[in-house]
Amino acid sequence: MIQRINTTLLTDFYELTMANGYFEEGIKDRISYFDIFFRSVPDEGGFAIMAGLEQAVRCMQDLKFEEEDIEFLRSKGIFSEGFLDYLRNFKFECDVWAIPEGTPIFPGEPLMTVRGPALQAQFLETILLICINHESLIATKASRIVRAAAGRTVMEFGSRRAHGTSAAVQGARAAYIGGCVGTACASCERDFGIPALGTMAHSWVQMFDSEYEAFTKYAQLYPNNCTLLVDTYNVLKSGLPNAIRVFKEQKPAKMGIRIDSGDLTYLSKQARKILDDAGLEDCIIVASNSFDEYLIQDVISQGACIDSFGVGERLITAKSDPVFGGVYKLAALEAEDGTIIPKIKISENVAKITNPGFKRVYRYYDKGTGKALADLIALHDETIPESGPMTIFDPKAPWKKKTLDNYTVKELQVPIFKGGELVYELPDIKEIQQYCREQEQTLYEEVLRFENPHEYYVDLSEKLWTLKRSMLENSGK
Amino acid sequence: MIQRINTTLLTDFYELTMANGYFEEGIKDRISYFDIFFRSVPDEGGFAIMAGLEQAVRCMQDLKFEEEDIEFLRSKGIFSEGFLDYLRNFKFECDVWAIPEGTPIFPGEPLMTVRGPALQAQFLETILLICINHESLIATKASRIVRAAAGRTVMEFGSRRAHGTSAAVQGARAAYIGGCVGTACASCERDFGIPALGTMAHSWVQMFDSEYEAFTKYAQLYPNNCTLLVDTYNVLKSGLPNAIRVFKEQKPAKMGIRIDSGDLTYLSKQARKILDDAGLEDCIIVASNSFDEYLIQDVISQGACIDSFGVGERLITAKSDPVFGGVYKLAALEAEDGTIIPKIKISENVAKITNPGFKRVYRYYDKGTGKALADLIALHDETIPESGPMTIFDPKAPWKKKTLDNYTVKELQVPIFKGGELVYELPDIKEIQQYCREQEQTLYEEVLRFENPHEYYVDLSEKLWTLKRSMLENSGK
Repeated sequence: MIQRINTTLLTDFYELTMANGYFEEGIKDRISYFDIFFRSVPDEGGFAIMAGLEQAVRCMQDLKFEEEDIEFLRSKGIFSEGFLDYLRNFKFECDVWAIPEGTPIFPGEPLMTVRGPALQAQFLETILLICINHESLIATKASRIVRAAAGRTVMEFGSRRAHGTSAAVQGARAAYIGGCVGTACASCERDFGIPALGTMAHSWVQMFDSEYEAFTKYAQLYPNNCTLLVDTYNVLKSGLPNAIRVFKEQKPAKMGIRIDSGDLTYLSKQARKILDDAGLEDCIIVASNSFDEYLIQDVISQGACIDSFGVGERLITAKSDPVFGGVYKLAALEAEDGTIIPKIKISENVAKITNPGFKRVYRYYDKGTGKALADLIALHDETIPESGPMTIFDPKAPWKKKTLDNYTVKELQVPIFKGGELVYELPDIKEIQQYCREQEQTLYEEVLRFENPHEYYVDLSEKLWTLKRSMLENSGK
Repeated sequence: MIQRINTTLLTDFYELTMANGYFEEGIKDRISYFDIFFRSVPDEGGFAIMAGLEQAVRCMQDLKFEEEDIEFLRSKGIFSEGFLDYLRNFKFECDVWAIPEGTPIFPGEPLMTVRGPALQAQFLETILLICINHESLIATKASRIVRAAAGRTVMEFGSRRAHGTSAAVQGARAAYIGGCVGTACASCERDFGIPALGTMAHSWVQMFDSEYEAFTKYAQLYPNNCTLLVDTYNVLKSGLPNAIRVFKEQKPAKMGIRIDSGDLTYLSKQARKILDDAGLEDCIIVASNSFDEYLIQDVISQGACIDSFGVGERLITAKSDPVFGGVYKLAALEAEDGTIIPKIKISENVAKITNPGFKRVYRYYDKGTGKALADLIALHDETIPESGPMTIFDPKAPWKKKTLDNYTVKELQVPIFKGGELVYELPDIKEIQQYCREQEQTLYEEVLRFENPHEYYVDLSEKLWTLKRSMLENSGK
């Protein structure tokens, strides 16, 4: 069936009460700036991967209130007819900038900036956060798992444990960005061009009178890609001997066995030896069963002979840390003369204090090695030198300074919408995956590692830091 | 916009290779029985809550292969034209039984049983698991959180941290089944009749020249339900005094304050005293900020004066244990003469061994107290006594016996589809919530508690146990 999800009203109800309020108070068109940023990397990792932009773009591009939406809102009895008329004729007018999908991202950086009429910019909050938080979470987890596999392939096999239908589909997309070679989910191949993978379940084997018959039938039907599931009865005593017999008799073009239970390290080592002894060096070994980055590192370190990992629930739910905490915060308002008035959210929790103003974010790379050195958040109208010594400092410890030289610099956000018009060409998913891989390679080993990664420098420009400090000091008065 | 998710091809690719195989091997119509069951309760709880049936029903009812689905499958070059024709003219023919939503469920029980042609029954695996696993996960978590709140209301506020759009929407639905009074998600009120709740974000307060002005405008706009967010600047020095002033000036019908950061126990106690001293005993205190069942128990035990909890990411992602591990396993086949041939999946991991055969599951209640005593899984054709002494035993420790008497007994699964026709009237969501509350009250305190709950008895009938044991013993031969 086709499941229809109304993403226009998939919004926190308070966005609507606030929107109606801005309308009624005559401030609906006040130009506002909102930033999406996150405060900490899941799993205490060194970086996250940006994802979810494409879906966010679709939601903004097609933002439209249907008559049934208007009727529902009217039935609540608290929204003005003027406001409902505005929604009926809604025309998206915002400017949007964002960091492209597949980019390594760090806490505090504006991942996306929305500038537009207060009512519109406010209204986008919930749906943008859903898209960016979900896919960035899964892309980040996939990146970790793929790095742990150290060159072996990783397949996303988690649909059945995903948090619902879109979590399965968009999660498979995000996992592909993070480096998985494909997914079990069939619709993702048709809709995104992500290879759909998989061969048989235990029920296939049980459906026939014998394992040998089940394998033979499968190899005859699918001679080009024949991966046989060998653990329905007993891997070493039954599954593997039957698979070898069938491979020799049927001679499929590509051969593999999949082991889905038991001691995968032991079984894969034994299976490798038996396959090799049978002259089946080309037969690959696929393993699946509650893998994540830690378990993969563990089995590899023990010498498991696994060529390909099928990763399910721990990837598709990001089980070890299933929340990507992106937030959407007001950063500035424009006065009628166009002056930008920075806004700050104070909190007793220092990490919850926002960076005020309309900002840009830059990444510095070492000209020689190409390695990423630091990111810099600056106000939008600052001139950022393209060369020459550049002193940066840690905003949490401003006495810690570092001077960069011999660098190249790149602005991270790119324009997505201008006055409500899409000005960004959405890249193909394969390009995004490739870009992600390349960008990860610009990170130092110390940032990439899982345990106690280096905290990558994300600094504020002198001007932004001074602004923030003065706003904090004045807030106390 | 309307997001369209093709749930027909939202399936593991292997369901399609197997389906084509059953078709080609001439066994597509062999009558098969599959069970959904789960192996352990999330968070080591004493029970879970069944949910997701409605969405599963919709997916089965509307199962249809569109021409674009057929085209995609043809492009893979491995599916026969006969099979594609079959899909084009697909007519759902299965019988389905399931435990109604809102029922407390336990490991090992068949939550849903599908009987039908092998091709069809196999094909349903992925989508049924997505629906049941996701909503049962969230309903179970919500039930825990609502019990921790001990009579105070719990609101589902997590859309922005949900794993995508359907996780937000169906998650809100499941949270309502588990006992939440409403959700932040606007579309859930329209589509499911779940109250949508929420008033303002910090950005509303920041959008005006002062907090007092922001509160005044809000109270004037929404005099019937005025909950003011008091922590944008400083709860006790600014937010609360401004809120009290506005409540006294504007006299809204319902008053509340919401605190979203800081020490919620301390702040709520202080706020309660200040509100009461100001004669605003009717003003409720809402708190939100990374709550779950443990943090709620903690703040209540410290005397926090919180009337209502807004619960976000830790509910909508079931953060502490975000996987509900339901599986879909072949339990039996029918011979041509209608004889049922039980099937078993062996595993070295004892918990992974399945219960063979076409089964029913019964719940025994104490006739006097109404408390649930035990569940019994039996073969479908066994006669279950309605009264008289009944000896049950733990299948993991068969020497532990217990004799029940003075009981009533209820079959848990009800018919959902008969020959592909829906024969179940889907209950209203409010009925499901009410039913869930009543059924939870049939559980003993020892099963309800969070820490080391009693393991509720889920026993096998003597006949089923004998069958299982003999199949296990014969498998070794």
